[in-house]
Amino acid sequence: MVDRSTAHALDAADPLAPLRDRFALPPETIYLDGNSLGARPRSAAARLVVAVRDEWGTGLVRSWNDAGWYTEPARVAARIAPLLGADPDEVVVADSTSVNLFKLLVAGARLRPGRTVILTSTRDFPTDVYLARAAAELLGCELRGVDGPDAVPAALDRDVAVVALCHVDFRTGALADAHGLTAAAHAVGALTLWDLSHSTGALDVDLHGWAADLAVGCGYKFLNGGPGAPAYAFAARVHQEELRSPLPGWFSHADPFAFDPDFTPVPGITRLACGTPPVLSLLGLAEGVASLDGVTPAALAAKAHGLTGLFVELVDRHCPEVEVASPRVAEARGAQVALRHPRAYPLVRALAARGVVGDFRTPDLARFGFAPAYTRYADVADAVGVLRAVLDHDDLDRLEPAQHHAVR
Amino acid sequence: MVDRSTAHALDAADPLAPLRDRFALPPETIYLDGNSLGARPRSAAARLVVAVRDEWGTGLVRSWNDAGWYTEPARVAARIAPLLGADPDEVVVADSTSVNLFKLLVAGARLRPGRTVILTSTRDFPTDVYLARAAAELLGCELRGVDGPDAVPAALDRDVAVVALCHVDFRTGALADAHGLTAAAHAVGALTLWDLSHSTGALDVDLHGWAADLAVGCGYKFLNGGPGAPAYAFAARVHQEELRSPLPGWFSHADPFAFDPDFTPVPGITRLACGTPPVLSLLGLAEGVASLDGVTPAALAAKAHGLTGLFVELVDRHCPEVEVASPRVAEARGAQVALRHPRAYPLVRALAARGVVGDFRTPDLARFGFAPAYTRYADVADAVGVLRAVLDHDDLDRLEPAQHHAVR
Repeated sequence: MVDRSTAHALDAADPLAPLRDRFALPPETIYLDGNSLGARPRSAAARLVVAVRDEWGTGLVRSWNDAGWYTEPARVAARIAPLLGADPDEVVVADSTSVNLFKLLVAGARLRPGRTVILTSTRDFPTDVYLARAAAELLGCELRGVDGPDAVPAALDRDVAVVALCHVDFRTGALADAHGLTAAAHAVGALTLWDLSHSTGALDVDLHGWAADLAVGCGYKFLNGGPGAPAYAFAARVHQEELRSPLPGWFSHADPFAFDPDFTPVPGITRLACGTPPVLSLLGLAEGVASLDGVTPAALAAKAHGLTGLFVELVDRHCPEVEVASPRVAEARGAQVALRHPRAYPLVRALAARGVVGDFRTPDLARFGFAPAYTRYADVADAVGVLRAVLDHDDLDRLEPAQHHAVR
Repeated sequence: MVDRSTAHALDAADPLAPLRDRFALPPETIYLDGNSLGARPRSAAARLVVAVRDEWGTGLVRSWNDAGWYTEPARVAARIAPLLGADPDEVVVADSTSVNLFKLLVAGARLRPGRTVILTSTRDFPTDVYLARAAAELLGCELRGVDGPDAVPAALDRDVAVVALCHVDFRTGALADAHGLTAAAHAVGALTLWDLSHSTGALDVDLHGWAADLAVGCGYKFLNGGPGAPAYAFAARVHQEELRSPLPGWFSHADPFAFDPDFTPVPGITRLACGTPPVLSLLGLAEGVASLDGVTPAALAAKAHGLTGLFVELVDRHCPEVEVASPRVAEARGAQVALRHPRAYPLVRALAARGVVGDFRTPDLARFGFAPAYTRYADVADAVGVLRAVLDHDDLDRLEPAQHHAVR
């Protein structure tokens, strides 16, 4: 079996080890799917009880003011900002990642009038590609799809308005060079729009350092906001006053309660809000983000590299028949590792049956996320031990590949 | 003071009276703002505790399947359908009302290619107008705004693609003639898009009877789904297969877990979904909708007419210095009554201080909602008694008008 002593030594030296106590994790489970749905902060249950019973039940509509619901999106955004390397007045919390992508694809293209191309990677998360195509159609633009972020520079020209890319490849975990690609886009006068869904809360996101223009990301992965938690959007301050969202709603109006039939956007980033936010889900996100309070993106990234590095090393040593499909250089990958196996779906099912939760990505990847806030090095070692046991003892040909509903 | 015996007799004869027990209402409060935020169903707190503690905390990502999160939107939609006079396969639950409006404005206009006008009323809820203008701009259409639904027929011609209207005037409660206006739109080949936010769960919505094409509505008013609960959208079956949402997301893909870079919409109404739904808020909506189980739109409307009728009658009799700004014919108004008063904001505040919760709509309306599921006739009589007391004893000139944050 896999030796656990190295892992225990790493846990003992881990400066983030105390964070795990902020989360309620089920016993007997090694949870390596925080990149689909983050763990529950311990504080979330009590917060939701107060929200439902007292704020909704007793305070009723008065809670928009008295319980601070109305200002909650801005508070959550301010807590997300340092995890992005951004300022609080550059982040808004609203809607879903998909809807925010649409807003910023259109608003971004409008910042580059006369340009006719939205450039993206067809390896990106499919929804991102669908929305880029949908936005391009409405804008009368061309969607230029390339095969991965590395192919972007050769496809850049002065027709490109927006380069929309996922920071992390959702299958392999390969990291795009956000800094270099942003510079390349800027060199031809284009803007970048980064989808940070698989990054924020686990990697060293540095929007200021990248000189990023626009970004979106989801609240339910490494931000631990709960299933389908609201998403966020970022726009650099320099772009904000010119930004015109295609989805103007009363929460983005300068004076919502004037009920003015003419739309005047609120100054600043809140112009990217739209309708009434889903408060219960928003309060889950507030607890998720609070659970990362005081932690830097660099510290999260360092631990993610340590965890994924140990996993790769132990898989190589103990399970040589499985191919590591993720980059082998830590700095080139996100907080996840994909293993290629012809029976990947049964493999994931067999691991789950033995308490190791990862997920399957068609056609042949078993994908494991290593949330740095609550994953221990010992979990990594134990997971590889279980993987070895599955490979040795479980009949993977017995289970048929089937549709898997674990979400993103 | 106002005589309560008539009210008590009406409560004793009210077939919907038992519904009130399904809700947890605060003592010492007469809640007449269910048209902003509906009351909390008793079942909601326990449901959310299970969702947060067990499903999120223990089940984690597996709960998308094991706890039925993935199929919950369809179950909630099926429960909303009878309240709309629609079939379950014509309703989808997703996103906010605003986002759904945008989807259907664009998708509706695409069903009428070559037509160049979106027609709406500038008295509609302002967000609806903002989104109609935003959609028209992206589509290269003209936004034709008229002054109220009654002005629609004269503005109809064969350039009109979509007529987008609120069923209930959010200020006065005046009801648009949905059946007649839909027929008028159809007579010139246009489609209708109804915003039912202030109707569903309180009025006799009958989308099939109206021959309606498209509709949206919110989950947090008379559907009692909790603050910012997800919204719904309706498309008549005849339109569904041609419907192209401008917001294609993975939840609207025919095979989301194939992760296909090409978008193929799922057959039927679910093509109007988009990204991952906010599950905690969705489960609140599930309880809200379940709290109306077994009740017909006609029964809800009959009680709403009774409540608003009694309120108008008692205000006329006991508070003649206040003007009823809503239609005096019950069938011409929604489940709300607006009172016009030069000091409407202080009036609403003074009423709230005495336990009667309504809301203010600029510049001079005090607005009261009468949710038929949990409002008693006795509440109506008591509210008018409190209004009389405020008018007699409170100094309304002492309080300055100010911004009011109660939501929609």
